[in-house]
Amino acid sequence: MASKIWRVSIIGSGNWGTVVARIVGHNVKRFSCFDEHVWMYVYPEMFEGEDLGTQINRTHENRKYLPGISLPKNVVANGNIHECVKNADILVFVIPHQFVPKICSSMEGSLLKSARGVSFIKGLFCNKDGIELVSQYIGKTLRIPMNTVSGANVANEVAQEKFAEATLGFDEKVTSRDEASRLQQLFDTPYFRVGIVPDIAGVEIQGALKNIIALAAGFSDGLGMGSNTKAAVIRIGLKEMHKFARMFFEGIKEETFWESCGIADVITTCYAGRNRRCAEEFVKSKQPWNDIEKRLLNGQRLQGTLTSQEVHDFLSARNLTDEFPFFEKVFKISFEGQDPNSIIG
Amino acid sequence: MASKIWRVSIIGSGNWGTVVARIVGHNVKRFSCFDEHVWMYVYPEMFEGEDLGTQINRTHENRKYLPGISLPKNVVANGNIHECVKNADILVFVIPHQFVPKICSSMEGSLLKSARGVSFIKGLFCNKDGIELVSQYIGKTLRIPMNTVSGANVANEVAQEKFAEATLGFDEKVTSRDEASRLQQLFDTPYFRVGIVPDIAGVEIQGALKNIIALAAGFSDGLGMGSNTKAAVIRIGLKEMHKFARMFFEGIKEETFWESCGIADVITTCYAGRNRRCAEEFVKSKQPWNDIEKRLLNGQRLQGTLTSQEVHDFLSARNLTDEFPFFEKVFKISFEGQDPNSIIG
Repeated sequence: MASKIWRVSIIGSGNWGTVVARIVGHNVKRFSCFDEHVWMYVYPEMFEGEDLGTQINRTHENRKYLPGISLPKNVVANGNIHECVKNADILVFVIPHQFVPKICSSMEGSLLKSARGVSFIKGLFCNKDGIELVSQYIGKTLRIPMNTVSGANVANEVAQEKFAEATLGFDEKVTSRDEASRLQQLFDTPYFRVGIVPDIAGVEIQGALKNIIALAAGFSDGLGMGSNTKAAVIRIGLKEMHKFARMFFEGIKEETFWESCGIADVITTCYAGRNRRCAEEFVKSKQPWNDIEKRLLNGQRLQGTLTSQEVHDFLSARNLTDEFPFFEKVFKISFEGQDPNSIIG
Repeated sequence: MASKIWRVSIIGSGNWGTVVARIVGHNVKRFSCFDEHVWMYVYPEMFEGEDLGTQINRTHENRKYLPGISLPKNVVANGNIHECVKNADILVFVIPHQFVPKICSSMEGSLLKSARGVSFIKGLFCNKDGIELVSQYIGKTLRIPMNTVSGANVANEVAQEKFAEATLGFDEKVTSRDEASRLQQLFDTPYFRVGIVPDIAGVEIQGALKNIIALAAGFSDGLGMGSNTKAAVIRIGLKEMHKFARMFFEGIKEETFWESCGIADVITTCYAGRNRRCAEEFVKSKQPWNDIEKRLLNGQRLQGTLTSQEVHDFLSARNLTDEFPFFEKVFKISFEGQDPNSIIG
């Protein structure tokens, strides 16, 4: 692979997708192994009376999802998914996880056989029938080797080049360490430090489950329980997350928990994230989740409550809810009217 | 040991000492293996025109260090250290670590041969000559087996019976698991959950080193770096703390890092502790530490800067500062005028 020029396409142009495209756009110019032209797939929509992709290419700014931050000119928006991916050696997925099945089916048959993917998507396909990582789903559907990136990454702070870290997980069975290092080059900058670990599931599962812990942290805040209690809640949640990861995924590595995708992401989510904030409001206002989402998130759906429900359905179908009392408490407080005080003790 | 009645003495009556005495005072009444009478050593001093110990015994409240919280009547203050410890089977140490040498020498020769100790002291004896845990020092000086307790424990929150956790570390070579469980009963309550691990060093070293991480977290806050950066700083600090623990102490167990004394204590200290707060102020005000301590802590000394200096002296004498770049950066920012921005990257 060493002498090949890699062409990169970003699938996604929301808030985080645009930040990732910005980093990639700068980085491809630093290394001769990458083609300088970066496609960014933009879902066709109108904004300020103009097609959003056209506006991005005219202004080199995504004024809808990342206003005020410039994009390098070698990042080119395109509303045609087939054109975006047909020559890509590296597909970088940065879209909400509920759009994954549709986007995958729209690109089937368009890809190079040698293409590979990197998923920045935090989420999980989990229901009573089973559990699957988003990267597993993409890899299986498109028949490409996948990698994953996750970390303590509030998008707007990375866009402002405030220091952050992330973790790239790869599968040693299908991706060499050299290739993983090449992918790392695509994302690593002095202000965005990307570590690599040979453990996709360890990286990805924490990014999905952390939001359940954040709900519990928010309940604790809503009850006015103080810093000891919140630290205890986070610690208990972390231990249960690890147990879950080890029980349902093979080859999880202990070191992964100490990377940015693990402990750091959980910490920042439990102090600064929107799941925490909405859960605090849930306890204080006693309103339904729908109303809180409308009021605090302009109607966007909360990830944590969705994941809590899905994990409950999955565990419940296997008679395993007793093995995960913390996750179960979060579920019952969120959906069955259980007293939020039961989160502790 | 099973049939013996254990008599307990608390050495210390400050803020945290009084909270621990309160818990112990309640717990000895719940189990027949403990004598109901609990001594609490109070350093003789005047408060509101009265000897503090006398006032505590009259009002069952430590109005100087824990006002507004009642103490059970079976906790009896005493200003005579010899009387306090001479019949004690269990000595519970809860004093600032700089007072340990003096208090130990004052009780030498007074103790039962069968006495054992539990240290709640967070600190470290560390200088260019070597490193020693506070519990090691006490055990060696008094020739008694020691145990240690540490956790995410802001004293006033525990006093208000807000839920918290702590970890009791014991040494399997000198203390049986039965005996450790008995000690656990002395401190565990529904609102103060005490776990046990056979790892004194793992429990204690984190309680001492966490304050260095908290300084770094405070620098990050002072610089206005946001939540990604702070999470990264905490994560890097945690990894270096673990490396330090493993390099200089034997038998450190991985599980200990996941107990309250580890990850939970670090988290709460980095968000709600006074080392964090003073470090933020250090960056913002550019004042010397002395002035900040006078202004924010009524002149009390900060633990983190002291530990940072001591750890630097210890590492420096061994040419090992390069192995601990994070600790070294905190030291240089704190004492050598290095730019706080260097904490990252």
